Amino acid sequence: MVGSDRSVGQSVNGVDLKGGSDVVSALHEALGDAVLVRPIDARYHGDWSGVGHTEPLAVVRPSSTAEVSRAVKICHAFGQAVVPQGGLSGLAGGATPRDGDVVLSMERMRGVEVVDPVGGTITVLAGTTLEAANAAALAIGLELGYDIGSRGSAQIGGTIATNAGGNRVIRFGMAREQVLGLEVVLADGTIVSTMNTMLKNNTGYDIRQLFIGSEGTLGIITRAVLRLHPVFRSRLTALCAAPSYDAIVQLLALVRSHTSGLTAFEIMWGELYDFMARGIGGSHPLEPGRPIYALVELSGDDREHDERRLEQILADATDRALVTDAVVAASERETRVFWRYREAELIDALPSIINFDVSIPIAHLGACAVACETALRTEWPEAHVFLYGHIGDSNLHLSTSVGSADQGLLHRVDRVVYDVVRTFGGSISAEHGIGTLKRDFLHYSRSETELDVMRRIKAALDPTGILNPGKVL
Amino acid sequence: MVGSDRSVGQSVNGVDLKGGSDVVSALHEALGDAVLVRPIDARYHGDWSGVGHTEPLAVVRPSSTAEVSRAVKICHAFGQAVVPQGGLSGLAGGATPRDGDVVLSMERMRGVEVVDPVGGTITVLAGTTLEAANAAALAIGLELGYDIGSRGSAQIGGTIATNAGGNRVIRFGMAREQVLGLEVVLADGTIVSTMNTMLKNNTGYDIRQLFIGSEGTLGIITRAVLRLHPVFRSRLTALCAAPSYDAIVQLLALVRSHTSGLTAFEIMWGELYDFMARGIGGSHPLEPGRPIYALVELSGDDREHDERRLEQILADATDRALVTDAVVAASERETRVFWRYREAELIDALPSIINFDVSIPIAHLGACAVACETALRTEWPEAHVFLYGHIGDSNLHLSTSVGSADQGLLHRVDRVVYDVVRTFGGSISAEHGIGTLKRDFLHYSRSETELDVMRRIKAALDPTGILNPGKVL
Repeated sequence: MVGSDRSVGQSVNGVDLKGGSDVVSALHEALGDAVLVRPIDARYHGDWSGVGHTEPLAVVRPSSTAEVSRAVKICHAFGQAVVPQGGLSGLAGGATPRDGDVVLSMERMRGVEVVDPVGGTITVLAGTTLEAANAAALAIGLELGYDIGSRGSAQIGGTIATNAGGNRVIRFGMAREQVLGLEVVLADGTIVSTMNTMLKNNTGYDIRQLFIGSEGTLGIITRAVLRLHPVFRSRLTALCAAPSYDAIVQLLALVRSHTSGLTAFEIMWGELYDFMARGIGGSHPLEPGRPIYALVELSGDDREHDERRLEQILADATDRALVTDAVVAASERETRVFWRYREAELIDALPSIINFDVSIPIAHLGACAVACETALRTEWPEAHVFLYGHIGDSNLHLSTSVGSADQGLLHRVDRVVYDVVRTFGGSISAEHGIGTLKRDFLHYSRSETELDVMRRIKAALDPTGILNPGKVL
Repeated sequence: MVGSDRSVGQSVNGVDLKGGSDVVSALHEALGDAVLVRPIDARYHGDWSGVGHTEPLAVVRPSSTAEVSRAVKICHAFGQAVVPQGGLSGLAGGATPRDGDVVLSMERMRGVEVVDPVGGTITVLAGTTLEAANAAALAIGLELGYDIGSRGSAQIGGTIATNAGGNRVIRFGMAREQVLGLEVVLADGTIVSTMNTMLKNNTGYDIRQLFIGSEGTLGIITRAVLRLHPVFRSRLTALCAAPSYDAIVQLLALVRSHTSGLTAFEIMWGELYDFMARGIGGSHPLEPGRPIYALVELSGDDREHDERRLEQILADATDRALVTDAVVAASERETRVFWRYREAELIDALPSIINFDVSIPIAHLGACAVACETALRTEWPEAHVFLYGHIGDSNLHLSTSVGSADQGLLHRVDRVVYDVVRTFGGSISAEHGIGTLKRDFLHYSRSETELDVMRRIKAALDPTGILNPGKVL
């Protein structure tokens, strides 16, 4: 296919195309083997959401920022849409191409460039996995401030482009808070470097923030500097059963009044715990059948001290009837068992499971969760409805299986849940982003004036709209 | 003055001016007593930097977001420059008007609207002082994540507009990391509300970030939601003398390897400590005459445990010859005494003191500090040069008195220091911002491509350039 209709020396919009009269030929001419043409391997057709998988026109796999810049410059000259892809573990369709889009995969831009034990920073290429970056940090006794289940495939660039969250947000904040420096390729191919390594730097607008969480629609992240944190010497995990969501909220306040070492506060409503218990079988850390369960993680620098602290907290919580039963993991293995219930992987085996990721102010989250469940059961009486999440971060996950999940049904289920979330003043995306999956509902969480500001920013940075079109806005 | 040449029913650019033919009359007509006309009290002429104090054309003191919006709408219609003013404790001239500018003072927009103990958030009007906001948080056992010396006058809106830092950044990050929600008035008077109260919210571009640290040039902050943190039960402060900057850097790593409770790590080179010791008189926590001193603050939930931990750290540091002498504050009073040396207020009595606030990667900060001192002494052999700062955040403060400080000399001193900082890959502003004072040097820390992105953002949000013109860019 490539080369059939080349014409040497052609130029489009002032860019010398070095022989390509169509965009794929031009890319191939400039980047050679870095360009894959059709048929394209299915793994480039979309992300883990599974929604709308489509074969792209071509895949470019650059090995350097200069190559990213050249590829984008060519696409810009042709008005060609570019879809950046990281590890494809996204859950909102943000990295899924449309027919005719060129995919820009960062999979070859892997590597840790610098780990600085003095400044407590790591500098990586955007295609480096979260796991690989963290391994480099651990080698000097430090670690990243965020962690997500898909760490083995999720790439640093993708986690920044989607502002990933995860289990440690309550202590360290989201990916945004970890980013000290970025290198980005803009829509016209310009390379912008803000590779700052310093914690404080107030020199003009913080343009890094534009690219964090904008899902590849404002620029393509090529390198990053992240903060590192000392590894905690001690980590303790307790699993607690509680009589109600209100008790859970009081437990959270109680833990915080006792210690500054809270690093995770996760909950599962009974239906999830019971389902997981049936699936896992054998004996369980706590008996199923209670209304709600909490996973509490305390981290610190002295295990004995932290154990005494946790004992006090659990005794205090029991006295106040906030907790009916509790168990502390005695080993790393037990800790993993506790988390297995919360990670809820077994529910993926249910037919057509639909996963939600929403935020609701903590005080109202419990009522909102129950209202979502009621609304779903009103429409689909047989539905499975699993409620769980990072409650310390206001973040509720809801997974439901209502029967077959054709696109029309999916949209109806979305509407039922998001209508309730909107009523409670919540957000339709806590940590997964908007992508294509939630785009129709963005106005549920953002006013017209907010959307107008977003559109102005998009127009300022990508006036011809070639970067990940159809995503977010 | 007002009303002399009114004409009823006039409209400019579609805004009904309700009788004003000049901007001051129009403002007065719309906002009445909220508008002050010349002669304007000197306190509105500029900020604590003292640079370029100028009487503004008028001062508007709105009491509500609606009034801010009306005032800005009128200024927008007239193409009138607007300079937002908070508590005026800024040190870069960012709130200082030029001749003919209208000042928009937030001093009447004071008040705490909500303190939410469950969500751990506070909602305040922008003109609320940092101290008042923190007092409201302390009343429920929580506190703000940042604190600066000017807390009694600095307003929340100003601290966000300048992305304030301070002493706790090493633990909680800067003001940016504390902001969950913002309400902002844009250049055309549109009110944009992103009054989010949730820790996680990935719904489209995070437009809050545009207004944080942009010094009032992209919008006027009217309300904010900030994160709160539990008050630590224990706080310990040690003052240490060290043989060298390299020893200080190793001490920082040592402390971090022992504990996750580090909440401040501040240093003073000997010249400052000795100067303060002479000024304070009497006996001192540590004898003067050592090369360098560190203030180490550990915070946690158990004083006895933290004391043992700190003892271990200091013993370990002494064994390794990182510390030659150390003392732990035995009371709140002693803690305040320790900090007094670091806060360095007495140096303000020196003639024409010039204060710098720069960032340098921690590994090179010591060499950069010495190089700055050498460069200043080469030019001005009799100069006082005081070096100190938030070293755990890469943040060096340098204060110098070289003789008289007329504007020409100030610029020469700036150039000497910033030339050195640039050589070391540093930033010309760590936490004070750019304002007018550092504008000529912004290109030392930002590339042309970065500045171009900033200009595009400015043009997208304030195309006619009425918001705080002449600042930052």
